[in-house]
Amino acid sequence: MKQVRVRLVVAFDGTCYQGWQTQKSGQGVQELIEIALRRLFPGAGPLHGSSRTDTGVHALGLVAHVDIPVDEWRMTPRKLVLALNAHLPEDIRIFKASRAHPGFHARFHAAGKEYRYRIWNAPAMNPLLTRMAWHLPRSLDVAAMRQAATHFVGRHDFASFTSNPGYPRPTTVRTLTACEVRRRGPEITVRIVGDGFLYRMCRGIAGTLAQVGLHRISPNDIPSILQSKDRRVAGMTAPPEGLVLWRVHYPRPATAAPPDSDASPADLE
Amino acid sequence: MKQVRVRLVVAFDGTCYQGWQTQKSGQGVQELIEIALRRLFPGAGPLHGSSRTDTGVHALGLVAHVDIPVDEWRMTPRKLVLALNAHLPEDIRIFKASRAHPGFHARFHAAGKEYRYRIWNAPAMNPLLTRMAWHLPRSLDVAAMRQAATHFVGRHDFASFTSNPGYPRPTTVRTLTACEVRRRGPEITVRIVGDGFLYRMCRGIAGTLAQVGLHRISPNDIPSILQSKDRRVAGMTAPPEGLVLWRVHYPRPATAAPPDSDASPADLE
Repeated sequence: MKQVRVRLVVAFDGTCYQGWQTQKSGQGVQELIEIALRRLFPGAGPLHGSSRTDTGVHALGLVAHVDIPVDEWRMTPRKLVLALNAHLPEDIRIFKASRAHPGFHARFHAAGKEYRYRIWNAPAMNPLLTRMAWHLPRSLDVAAMRQAATHFVGRHDFASFTSNPGYPRPTTVRTLTACEVRRRGPEITVRIVGDGFLYRMCRGIAGTLAQVGLHRISPNDIPSILQSKDRRVAGMTAPPEGLVLWRVHYPRPATAAPPDSDASPADLE
Repeated sequence: MKQVRVRLVVAFDGTCYQGWQTQKSGQGVQELIEIALRRLFPGAGPLHGSSRTDTGVHALGLVAHVDIPVDEWRMTPRKLVLALNAHLPEDIRIFKASRAHPGFHARFHAAGKEYRYRIWNAPAMNPLLTRMAWHLPRSLDVAAMRQAATHFVGRHDFASFTSNPGYPRPTTVRTLTACEVRRRGPEITVRIVGDGFLYRMCRGIAGTLAQVGLHRISPNDIPSILQSKDRRVAGMTAPPEGLVLWRVHYPRPATAAPPDSDASPADLE
């Protein structure tokens, strides 16, 4: 049976979900999108996501792919976005749909990902960010956090920054191309870009940077924490509500879609 | 009876409230803070707010004042912030408390206010901003909106931009010192600063700017819309969820508090 491979850019408020994948304990975002897809295309295959985000973590740029039987494929990608969103709860949105190369794989071809972790650093929490940031009332030393962040950039074994993954990984070595700490008033954002991330690695880095900001860990301790390859040596795991999967990058050839009049990047912009 | 006048900076997510003042139809933020105050200080007087925000509108910098009998005033302002927040729902937060001059009045002495109105301009709504922005799926012409915005700056009669106020005002003339349209990806923010605002004036300006962005109103029409002094001539009233009362300014002398070791601006920063 001939199929059309479709790529989706997915955004969700993770507050009410057990992450991307459905768990015994609750519903995942993936399952709800699959249900919506099958209401439009009964023969739609499984949905493959770029990332298995954890319970409570948010996304603005998760990428997923799905195969749809060619005889059921009747709408433009722009119409697909509207139709899918009409069948999804308000806290899950499809930002973009486009036809992908038949060999494109959202997870295996992902070349890099960007996460952002938000901290609200003031005595009282910002009531507009309750579900979207980690509240740390004690004043953080952002200069120390920035100094610590530079030690994460590059190729390192991040075993000290991942919780028990539940599934084995051939290696815990990853390369970060950016780890930046930005401050705008009481709002602190940690931006982390890398070729791949271990289970809870971003939250391990964010939690460790917070403890540097509280002067419980020195910026100069980061290299030895990395070398120890021991989770107990690094700082705490930051809570999920501050984390957003911001963007997933693919190398050009894998993302090149067949010509499609309605698949312009202007769909989002 | 001797009293201490206390100034509060109040933030709230307005989604679940009937604005600042309690209405027949539902609870206001003011009443909940008064209840929290009286649990700490049984003799606390009424709470006077700088602004009567409308149902569903948010605030990050509303200012209010209250008198507390001097014999009940036992805590530092920093402790007061913690104690009040412990008695308030999560969507209402006191950002700062400080002792004020006995003559200070949050409403009558306000010299200027800043509002921000947020629009999400993309086919699908950002699920992280559902309660915090106006979703306009059709692409907006931001250059035209910026051109239109300049016409609002200065001293004008804003009768065309206010809904039936419910209470009479001696004049509908106000002075805006800023009206700016900023774009960051699909997020458009209108920043409006002025010496005072009429009922629904910010939302009237935001709604009119949106219609300029959709080419339904020309930027050059704004001066004649202002001159007409007729609400029906201007654009629609934008919905409340996009609006945030950002800051209230006071002239220096009125805000000077008696010396108080714990009332530094570092409380928020």
